[in-house]
Amino acid sequence: MQRITISSAQRVDNTNTFQLTGEQIHYLQRVLRLKSGDLFIAQDGEGQQWQSQLTDISGEAQILSTLVTATRPSTLELAAALPKSGFDDVVRQATELGVTDIQPLLSDRTLLNPSPKKLVRWQRIAQEASEQCERGYVPRLEPPIKFAEWIKAGPVSVGNYFCAARVNAPGLLPCVRTLLTDSPQQSIRVVVGPEGGWTSEEIAVAIAHGYQEVSLGSGILRATTASLTALAIISSVREQLI
Amino acid sequence: MQRITISSAQRVDNTNTFQLTGEQIHYLQRVLRLKSGDLFIAQDGEGQQWQSQLTDISGEAQILSTLVTATRPSTLELAAALPKSGFDDVVRQATELGVTDIQPLLSDRTLLNPSPKKLVRWQRIAQEASEQCERGYVPRLEPPIKFAEWIKAGPVSVGNYFCAARVNAPGLLPCVRTLLTDSPQQSIRVVVGPEGGWTSEEIAVAIAHGYQEVSLGSGILRATTASLTALAIISSVREQLI
Repeated sequence: MQRITISSAQRVDNTNTFQLTGEQIHYLQRVLRLKSGDLFIAQDGEGQQWQSQLTDISGEAQILSTLVTATRPSTLELAAALPKSGFDDVVRQATELGVTDIQPLLSDRTLLNPSPKKLVRWQRIAQEASEQCERGYVPRLEPPIKFAEWIKAGPVSVGNYFCAARVNAPGLLPCVRTLLTDSPQQSIRVVVGPEGGWTSEEIAVAIAHGYQEVSLGSGILRATTASLTALAIISSVREQLI
Repeated sequence: MQRITISSAQRVDNTNTFQLTGEQIHYLQRVLRLKSGDLFIAQDGEGQQWQSQLTDISGEAQILSTLVTATRPSTLELAAALPKSGFDDVVRQATELGVTDIQPLLSDRTLLNPSPKKLVRWQRIAQEASEQCERGYVPRLEPPIKFAEWIKAGPVSVGNYFCAARVNAPGLLPCVRTLLTDSPQQSIRVVVGPEGGWTSEEIAVAIAHGYQEVSLGSGILRATTASLTALAIISSVREQLI
């Protein structure tokens, strides 16, 4: 069944009635051909999901019952140096794999400086992917920031992994397994580099700030593949242990 | 350093001299601006890698020394129902993640019937990705075949996993971990479905033929993401245990 993400501002006077946006009306009525009385699922992007009904062709809808009342899952943050291309796919696939926060980074070897429009675009992609993969929450997209500035804020908790290629570092899988075996709900942040990898200065700065250097395997992964590999590993370990 | 895959037919009289193809000459001399005397790496796509030198602008080259003498790694086969789009990326990323064999499948819900040209294209993508990710071997691409015919040949060994969504099946990660802990070099075949998933008949047939049904997690993954997730999990477990 189709999922639509609604904001609290769309609720009418805190009742169970809500007003669809123009884009949502178009999508439900024109693309999916829903009519008054037809059902769909509304979600708040933070874990709540409601069985809902289109009640009026002007786009008024009604919450009929609560399907899922969940809290946001444990943090799984991807901080990734922006690749030359393919970040749209990274956002989409990271959402499918259960990421909760995405921080685009501008590293020494990052070639582009994205326009503010890109952030809006990525947030929309994350919302659509969230609706499709039925996870019930929408990852937060942070504005791109220079790696050198971002790293100064330091790690957020104990589970902070810095992926590097061509280094003799422990694998991400055993590191995450050890961490989550003790504490399955532990927040995790994983940092992935750009094409060409991190500079040795960037790696040194990350380690100095408390990040654990890890390897994603002996092969050389492209930047976009590396992000997805890291998230696939972490999500699988977490699902196995929770 | 640039890698180029050469076939045994390019070797001159079984000597250390070989002749580059027109495409390879163009790439090394026009795109990368290599001149006579410049070095590059030649590979046979089966594990052998040689330090090589361009010796003549007509495309003659010379093997100087052997860099790596490896045998083909343990089999990691991806059998994937062809998605509507995005299979080029699956081939590329699967190669990065260490796949050795790729079998495109036409399932009940597969919408397209690819032209024979596609196989040539996928094999070229696999070769290019192999050169870039420095794995030293090129995955084999099998011609697309109907799932119903292919499944009759039965599983190849004990490590045969059939990924399904919305089922109550064990996770791929613990299954692969148990298998490879006993036998790290075990061949593995993993089967991934199309958009919309397998039909219940297809799942029943696979189980009847000895495949183990597994889950890639509680989220709903798109077909292309599912292939990469499965391979990322298997490769990580294998690298940890070898």
